[in-house]
Amino acid sequence: MLATKQEVTDFMRTEFPQAKCIVEAVGEQSATIRHTVGFDELRPGGTVSGPVLMTVADCALYVAILGEIGIVSLAVTTSLTINFLRKPSSSKDIIGKCTLLKIGKSLIVGEVSLYSEGDVNPLAHVVGTYSIPKAR
Amino acid sequence: MLATKQEVTDFMRTEFPQAKCIVEAVGEQSATIRHTVGFDELRPGGTVSGPVLMTVADCALYVAILGEIGIVSLAVTTSLTINFLRKPSSSKDIIGKCTLLKIGKSLIVGEVSLYSEGDVNPLAHVVGTYSIPKAR
Amino acid sequence: MLATKQEVTDFMRTEFPQAKCIVEAVGEQSATIRHTVGFDELRPGGTVSGPVLMTVADCALYVAILGEIGIVSLAVTTSLTINFLRKPSSSKDIIGKCTLLKIGKSLIVGEVSLYSEGDVNPLAHVVGTYSIPKAR
Amino acid sequence: MLATKQEVTDFMRTEFPQAKCIVEAVGEQSATIRHTVGFDELRPGGTVSGPVLMTVADCALYVAILGEIGIVSLAVTTSLTINFLRKPSSSKDIIGKCTLLKIGKSLIVGEVSLYSEGDVNPLAHVVGTYSIPKAR
Repeated sequence: MLATKQEVTDFMRTEFPQAKCIVEAVGEQSATIRHTVGFDELRPGGTVSGPVLMTVADCALYVAILGEIGIVSLAVTTSLTINFLRKPSSSKDIIGKCTLLKIGKSLIVGEVSLYSEGDVNPLAHVVGTYSIPKAR
Repeated sequence: MLATKQEVTDFMRTEFPQAKCIVEAVGEQSATIRHTVGFDELRPGGTVSGPVLMTVADCALYVAILGEIGIVSLAVTTSLTINFLRKPSSSKDIIGKCTLLKIGKSLIVGEVSLYSEGDVNPLAHVVGTYSIPKAR
Repeated sequence: MLATKQEVTDFMRTEFPQAKCIVEAVGEQSATIRHTVGFDELRPGGTVSGPVLMTVADCALYVAILGEIGIVSLAVTTSLTINFLRKPSSSKDIIGKCTLLKIGKSLIVGEVSLYSEGDVNPLAHVVGTYSIPKAR
Repeated sequence: MLATKQEVTDFMRTEFPQAKCIVEAVGEQSATIRHTVGFDELRPGGTVSGPVLMTVADCALYVAILGEIGIVSLAVTTSLTINFLRKPSSSKDIIGKCTLLKIGKSLIVGEVSLYSEGDVNPLAHVVGTYSIPKAR
């Protein structure tokens, strides 16, 4: 059932051609994602926009789920709560680290900590829920 | 203190040149935002991506706040909770309608309902909080 | 399928004998709940404790769901987000008004506004999700 | 500025005489809380009620904050998101473990994992924010 890093990467590239999320690691109910930061990601004042952070978190959650239950294209986010904690660096990649909290038959819940690469303090914290189609 | 629709639009264009959010209405502790839907917004299966919906919600909240307290470039989102309710249409604009729930000295809370244009049922619901700098 | 106010009240009394929530109205995808305020509900400084507010919100959501889909004892809360907006009065009942946002096969989402009786401004806002057993 | 376990326990007993939360540990931006489970805490079917879990989480967050910034009676919860993950045991105490994610001047954010004593899998996960009065 488990999908490998390569399988998840291939799937994400096909399904989400616009996505800039790079799969760094996946497995053991967790995932690590990298997102580069450039003009499109920045807000005035040199900070990364909130929606980019939400994108990275959503992606990290999705990748962790794919790694756990296999390639399921119909998994959809049902809810997501983000707390913004610190101002992101404008010159460092965003790293998202997801840990799954519950793997149910129909709902999977996980949390994601987001970092500017190299920082130990998270810049945002996310909890999200995915709904999984029944016939998996 | 109140900012007009034109002032908010001008401010958003300068501060967020990448943003595709169009201010439809602002005032009386509320705002309505439109976001066009094209290739960049779509996911496979013809649905609008979650981060786009979060972008529209965040934007609607920000515009409602600007309309209420005036142009404050340092207001930042501190938290945001989104519940995805229905699949968005791939061929209709996203409309975000924000109502502010509390206008405090340091925190402003609002809710946003998101719609595919013309639909009466919301496709997502958002509650978010902005932190306002003290010297306003 | 619809449960009446009397049926819901009877069910709540049997299933939740400790609950102090009084069903004021139920139907049309909504519910109104009252909770009296006494020593058990108060914190120092004369304010109603947060968990009491969460109890009223959870109850309002549950009653609205029972009114919509009938008496289902196995519905369980899966997530709940509360924003505290204003200090509750220590001498007025708490009123909770729930509106369902989505009635899905397995998930029901609703929002609840909480008031000190007679006030027009909400003292807290809640969004919550219930999971519904499949064999309903 | 730091408050000890004894100081926090004394403060909680005076300020919240109804509270059943026992401080197990506090310090290093974290806290562990115990809540006994009896008739008042149970729902039909032998599960601990959601509001009890929210109470333990809120208490764990508050104790962690007191341990970090000292005894501040005016700190108030501004928001709280709970995800219910597993059915609690009806015969075990609830243990809440809080870790603070951000200690800002006006806002403190923390997460809490809740367990039935002895279980390694959390039964609920909470993220909450407290507002801190300025003149601390």
